[in-house]
Amino acid sequence: MNYIGIDLGGTNVAAAVVNETGRCLGQASIPTPRGAEKIADAIAQAAVLACSDAGIAVTDARSVGVASAGSIDPEGGMVTHAFNLDLHNVPLAGMVSQRLGLPATLENDANAAALGEFVAGAGRGGRSLVAVTLGTGVGSGAVLNGKLFTGSNYAGMEAGHMVIHRGGRQCTCGRQGCWETYASATGLIRSTREAMEAHPDSILWHYAPTLEAANGKTAFDAAQAGDAVAQAVVESYVDDLACGITNLINLFQPETLCVAGGVSRQGENLLGPVRKILDAEEFTRDGTRRTRLCLAQLGSEAGVIGAALVPLYR
Amino acid sequence: MNYIGIDLGGTNVAAAVVNETGRCLGQASIPTPRGAEKIADAIAQAAVLACSDAGIAVTDARSVGVASAGSIDPEGGMVTHAFNLDLHNVPLAGMVSQRLGLPATLENDANAAALGEFVAGAGRGGRSLVAVTLGTGVGSGAVLNGKLFTGSNYAGMEAGHMVIHRGGRQCTCGRQGCWETYASATGLIRSTREAMEAHPDSILWHYAPTLEAANGKTAFDAAQAGDAVAQAVVESYVDDLACGITNLINLFQPETLCVAGGVSRQGENLLGPVRKILDAEEFTRDGTRRTRLCLAQLGSEAGVIGAALVPLYR
Repeated sequence: MNYIGIDLGGTNVAAAVVNETGRCLGQASIPTPRGAEKIADAIAQAAVLACSDAGIAVTDARSVGVASAGSIDPEGGMVTHAFNLDLHNVPLAGMVSQRLGLPATLENDANAAALGEFVAGAGRGGRSLVAVTLGTGVGSGAVLNGKLFTGSNYAGMEAGHMVIHRGGRQCTCGRQGCWETYASATGLIRSTREAMEAHPDSILWHYAPTLEAANGKTAFDAAQAGDAVAQAVVESYVDDLACGITNLINLFQPETLCVAGGVSRQGENLLGPVRKILDAEEFTRDGTRRTRLCLAQLGSEAGVIGAALVPLYR
Repeated sequence: MNYIGIDLGGTNVAAAVVNETGRCLGQASIPTPRGAEKIADAIAQAAVLACSDAGIAVTDARSVGVASAGSIDPEGGMVTHAFNLDLHNVPLAGMVSQRLGLPATLENDANAAALGEFVAGAGRGGRSLVAVTLGTGVGSGAVLNGKLFTGSNYAGMEAGHMVIHRGGRQCTCGRQGCWETYASATGLIRSTREAMEAHPDSILWHYAPTLEAANGKTAFDAAQAGDAVAQAVVESYVDDLACGITNLINLFQPETLCVAGGVSRQGENLLGPVRKILDAEEFTRDGTRRTRLCLAQLGSEAGVIGAALVPLYR
C-alpha cells in the first residue's frame, strides 16, 4: 500500500510516496507559496508530482499526511498558528483532502520526524523511540509501545521546554532555564558568542571573525584545535545536552533515543561525551536493558516519511 | 470478575479483592515478616484473608498482583533489590503464584498507585493520568492511552530523578539537582531546617522545638501563622514543585495529574499556588484542553487497587 507524506516548510513543500515500511517510492519538492489556499494547492501539486515520480496515480495512494511546524490541532486537521508560514486557524487537512480526494491527516513536524525515524531509521524494528532535534530550538517526538505519542491534547513532547536550570536563561515560552535555551544550536551559538566577548584572545575569533559569524560549528572547531575557552563552551554544552537526555531516559526509558539536527553532525564527537555522562547518571546505568543513544538516520526525509505513515501509528 | 491486589510495605502486607472497576470487595492487612519465603507466605495469607472478607474463594479470583517498593523486574516477576525488605533477586511473583495457584504479576509501587488512581480515583473515566507522590522521595507513575506506562524496560517514570536545578542538591541517585531533592517531604524538611538554622528568631522554632522535630507540616504551619521565613520556605517549595509538574505536563500532557503523599494533605493550600504557576508557565496555558491538577483520591488504597488490576492494563 502507498501513502503520501508532505513536509510543509517555510521554504519548500516536500512530498514523498512511501510504502508501509517507510521506503520512499517517489519524491518531489516545490517552493512554498504564501497564503492558505495557495499552500494547499502547492501541497496537492507536490503530491501529484511525487506520485508521478513513483509511477502511481494519486488514487493508488491510501492517504495523505501533512507535517507542519507551528501549533497544530491534529484532531481538527487545523494549523492553529504557524508564524513562519503566516497560517492561523487554517483547516489545512480538509483543504488538502478536498483537492486530492484522499483522507488527510495533519501532524506536528517533530512528531512526524520521530515517527519516520521509528519506522525507517534509528528505531527500525523496535517498539519505542524518542527523537531529539537540535536546531533553532530543541524539537522532540516519541513513539511509545509502537504508537505515536502526543499526549491527551496532541501537545505533548515539548522536551525543549523542560526546565533544567531553574532561574536560568529566559526562554521564548516564558519560562527560565528551559533545556532548549542551552541545548539548541541557538543556545550553543549564544554561549559561543558570550565566550568570544569574554575572551578577545581566544582562537574562536579565528573561526568566527565577528560575533554574527559564530555558528553551531564554531566552538567545536576551535575546541578541536585546542582552544581552552572553546573546550569549556563545548563541555558546558555537552553537560546541558546530557542533562536533558538523562531526564528523558529516566522518564521514558525508550529502546532508542536518536539525536538529529545541525549540531548532531558532530557525530561521535558529540555523542561520545554524552554517553560518558549517561553512564554515570542514568537511573538504570547498572541495568541490562538501557536506552541506545544514536544519531538519527534519515536527515530531512524523516519528516516526510513519518507524515505519510501517521495514519498507521495513531 | 475478581482480582487480588497486594501492597507489600516495610511494615504491613495489605491485600484487597477488587472488581474490574477497582471497587474494593474485601481487605486484609498483616505485619510484614522478614525473609523471602516468609514474605511470600504472608502475601498468600493476606490474600486468603481478603478473599474471605469478600466472601469468595481464592479460586474465584482471576489473578494476584503484587506491588513492591524497590527495584523490580516485572517481566521476570523478580524483586531485584528492595532494601527496606532486604529482598535481593527474589522471584516473588512465582513464589506467590505457587502458593495461591493463581497467575501472579509484580509491579513497582508507584506505578501501581498511579494505576489505582486512574481506574478508581482521580483519573476515573479518562484515558491518561500522571500521579506524583510527595513522600520520602518523589514517586511517580503514568497511565497513557489507557495503558500503564513503564518504558521499554519497566524502569520509566522516575520523575523524581529529573534534574530541575543543574548543579543543585546532591541526590541519592548520583545526580545533582533532582526534582525529589526539592519537592519531596524530605526536601521540604531539609529546607525548613536550613531556614531554622539561619533564623534562630523564626517562629518555625515554635512549631519544631528542635531541628529533628521539623516535619513536612512545620513550614506550612508557621507560614500560615504569618512567619516570613516560613513563607519563603513554602514559596520556594511551591516553585520547585510547580517547576517539575510543568515539565511533566509539557512532556506528557495527561488529562489528569494528581498529587499524593504526606505533603499533599495541604490540599488547596498547596495546589492553589501551584496552579498559578502552571497558568503562567505551561506550554499549553492558552489551550482549551489543559491537564487537570488535583489531589489523589484513594490514599494508601491506590497501591493495592492498582496492583490488583495491573494484568488488565499492561
